[in-house]
Amino acid sequence: MTITTDLDHWADRIRSGDVRSISRAITAVENNSPESEPILRSLFPHTGKAHLAGITGAPGTGKSTLVDRLAAHYRKQNESVGIIAVDPSSPFTGGAILGDRIRMQGHATDSGIFIRSMATRGFLGGLSRATADAALVLEAAGKDRLLIETVGVGQDEVDIMRLADCTLVVLVPGLGDEVQALKAGIMEIADIFVLNKADREGADRFEQQLKAMLSLSPERDGWRPPVLRTVATESKGIAELAKTMDAYRDHLDRTGQRQARKIANWKQRLLDLLEARLMNRIVTNGIGEQGLESLAAEIAARKKDPYAAVTDLLARAGIC
Amino acid sequence: MTITTDLDHWADRIRSGDVRSISRAITAVENNSPESEPILRSLFPHTGKAHLAGITGAPGTGKSTLVDRLAAHYRKQNESVGIIAVDPSSPFTGGAILGDRIRMQGHATDSGIFIRSMATRGFLGGLSRATADAALVLEAAGKDRLLIETVGVGQDEVDIMRLADCTLVVLVPGLGDEVQALKAGIMEIADIFVLNKADREGADRFEQQLKAMLSLSPERDGWRPPVLRTVATESKGIAELAKTMDAYRDHLDRTGQRQARKIANWKQRLLDLLEARLMNRIVTNGIGEQGLESLAAEIAARKKDPYAAVTDLLARAGIC
Repeated sequence: MTITTDLDHWADRIRSGDVRSISRAITAVENNSPESEPILRSLFPHTGKAHLAGITGAPGTGKSTLVDRLAAHYRKQNESVGIIAVDPSSPFTGGAILGDRIRMQGHATDSGIFIRSMATRGFLGGLSRATADAALVLEAAGKDRLLIETVGVGQDEVDIMRLADCTLVVLVPGLGDEVQALKAGIMEIADIFVLNKADREGADRFEQQLKAMLSLSPERDGWRPPVLRTVATESKGIAELAKTMDAYRDHLDRTGQRQARKIANWKQRLLDLLEARLMNRIVTNGIGEQGLESLAAEIAARKKDPYAAVTDLLARAGIC
Repeated sequence: MTITTDLDHWADRIRSGDVRSISRAITAVENNSPESEPILRSLFPHTGKAHLAGITGAPGTGKSTLVDRLAAHYRKQNESVGIIAVDPSSPFTGGAILGDRIRMQGHATDSGIFIRSMATRGFLGGLSRATADAALVLEAAGKDRLLIETVGVGQDEVDIMRLADCTLVVLVPGLGDEVQALKAGIMEIADIFVLNKADREGADRFEQQLKAMLSLSPERDGWRPPVLRTVATESKGIAELAKTMDAYRDHLDRTGQRQARKIANWKQRLLDLLEARLMNRIVTNGIGEQGLESLAAEIAARKKDPYAAVTDLLARAGIC
């Protein structure tokens, strides 16, 4: 009874935009703590309305400044903004190495912007799950625009970008081998290319190369990713970019793709949840980490084969 | 009866090193076809003896040539070699974009070398699982040395490198922003750094920078990753590299870390197998892809919450 009341109170405070309540909920989903499921369940009916943009690109492309200026643009239009900055880090230590959020301090007194950094966790699928859940919290908190910023195009980043209604890939002229970055899978996740630092030397040539490359790839569901030039540090090109993002949203709505994407995304998240639930049952509340370790040792010593071990595990958990 | 006999025959032919039988088994594990589990089970007791090296680095670092020359070095010592080249590709289309294996044709008539390219598949965890299983096939086929080559340091690559007894990270002077590559998680997966194309301008300076950076990070379990210079195209530095790899293996054996790594690795693979088995039961043979899609649509429309949906799914599969 008290728990339900507390939960309702917490959910109400999140929905009213209370910063501390929002933070506490995001911490809960980050840590996958026991209170995360009840609070998400309680918030869930109030989600699904925000526009979610993903912004990715290599370090040094000025993504953070771009996100900052986009946020300022939306605030001027009186839309509230939630920003999730996913920091890259070593897959083994989990320590964030990027993450200078000082740039954001210009917004510190504006309650219409909520900013949160999330660091990579060591467990597979964990980061995109946590990011997706954090986005749900911010949606329930009534944010109109969510901006999710990630670095690079690893599997984690790709998973995170699947959440987005619109994915921006930020490039700059003259930073390493751009063509290579494009080869590495970035071409196909971009809905819009942002050529930032477009006042730099080589910007024209790079834009031409990029457009030439894009002209070779087929139109995707009636949309060919445009290339937009920005100089984020001077807020140049930001309004045009925001306009193009809205045009893309309209395109997705008109063609029914936005809905199709949401469904595909929930399908994947359903599988992730299912997996988490089962692993919790079989491992955490079943054989235990220690038991699993012993079993792995037997397999490593070739005393048992892994397929027989899995059958045993299922039988122990009463699943056969 | 016939099936068992066929399976035994197939396994025997793999163990005798028959190229077509090995290829067929790797294709089976790549496709996760029904015959993959029986053949792996049958081969499993004959695995666990090969030395497995992982070789990773950005495109253009000369990894493939390095692998080629390492293989030639081992062949001279009369050791048999299996090479798995994991090709990068778009996470969405699954089409390999690298993969010029022509360089390997010099070994085409040597039955002591088996070479196989594997392309990225679209499903999460799938590539490392398939690579691990392919490595088991090659171990059972009696290969003394396995060389697994991957590009980049995404989650897939990191998962693959976890398989290895020794991970080489290949760098070259003057290719993009090396320091950035190091930041992106590569520092901690490297057991040995290979500075290839070491006859290039800037190699000395780059080596100094790299060593300076390494001197700042703590020794890891009694090993500080050394930097070895090679010019793979001229076979320079290959013997020294192979010697250092063996020294690292001895270090792991002496300190018990090799065994600990194998156990940690099997623990993860056991979880992967468990997940695959359960998903097969709940989705493929349960609600079906179509049913899952309908459920996801209800969630996207906020008619059902995802947590209740998971509970329903488990109940339907008789797991409660």
